[in-house]
Amino acid sequence: MKPEETIDFHIKKTWQSIAKMYNEEAGKYGGTMATGYVLLNIDFDKGTPSTALGPKMGMEATSLSRILKNMEDQGLIVRKRNPQDGRSMLVHLTDFGKEKRKQAKEAVVQFNTVVSEAFSKEQMENFFGVIEKINDLISNRKIYQEKI
Amino acid sequence: MKPEETIDFHIKKTWQSIAKMYNEEAGKYGGTMATGYVLLNIDFDKGTPSTALGPKMGMEATSLSRILKNMEDQGLIVRKRNPQDGRSMLVHLTDFGKEKRKQAKEAVVQFNTVVSEAFSKEQMENFFGVIEKINDLISNRKIYQEKI
Repeated sequence: MKPEETIDFHIKKTWQSIAKMYNEEAGKYGGTMATGYVLLNIDFDKGTPSTALGPKMGMEATSLSRILKNMEDQGLIVRKRNPQDGRSMLVHLTDFGKEKRKQAKEAVVQFNTVVSEAFSKEQMENFFGVIEKINDLISNRKIYQEKI
Repeated sequence: MKPEETIDFHIKKTWQSIAKMYNEEAGKYGGTMATGYVLLNIDFDKGTPSTALGPKMGMEATSLSRILKNMEDQGLIVRKRNPQDGRSMLVHLTDFGKEKRKQAKEAVVQFNTVVSEAFSKEQMENFFGVIEKINDLISNRKIYQEKI
């Protein structure tokens, strides 16, 4: 089994292609994939607790707080004390951030629309079925439970 | 369209699950997913030019050279001058590296075997078909060529 024939190689390669594409597209608007993801994960009206963003995005606290700092400097977000909990902070979109969020959303919708239209409903259902089952096998620790 | 309903979210999540699983498994043998990948990409007998490893693994030169340095310190590899080209270096596996490469290979084969056995031939063919088509759409720049 060559590395380029494995399932993991193909999933990794595809994710890397998508990330590269999103970074290129975000670059046209002065952003990165990471800033786009953050914008999309902030509640448009009510803002989102900064502590909730990391888990939502599968990102470590140190990377995330560096990105949030940059985004604040760029005027995309503001951090305000949470009125319901004085110890935590809420991240709000600025008007500029809301405009950029719209562009990020369009980029994601565009990718998902073009891809969906390239396949039949059955093909997409099968694809998601395989993806979900792989995740189940991993999270239920079925892969390395006993050597074959 | 919520982030968790997008195709990219599912591919990213699955890749992150696989990476976490491989890192955990490699940890049992004192390694990481990255060292395992390097071991698997070095020719068992003839060694591999260090300049060829980065492109093969989709890894940047700086990250790779840090990993190679660590692996040399751990006695997994040795770097020797290329007899055919005095300016480049060949990375060779030590006997210890060859032993660890075998363990890395077993981990990859185990994952791919368990996953393959969970699906029919048709399901896997469809899955790879979708993955390849997504890569084609991206590399042929079909996603953002014109706004829908």
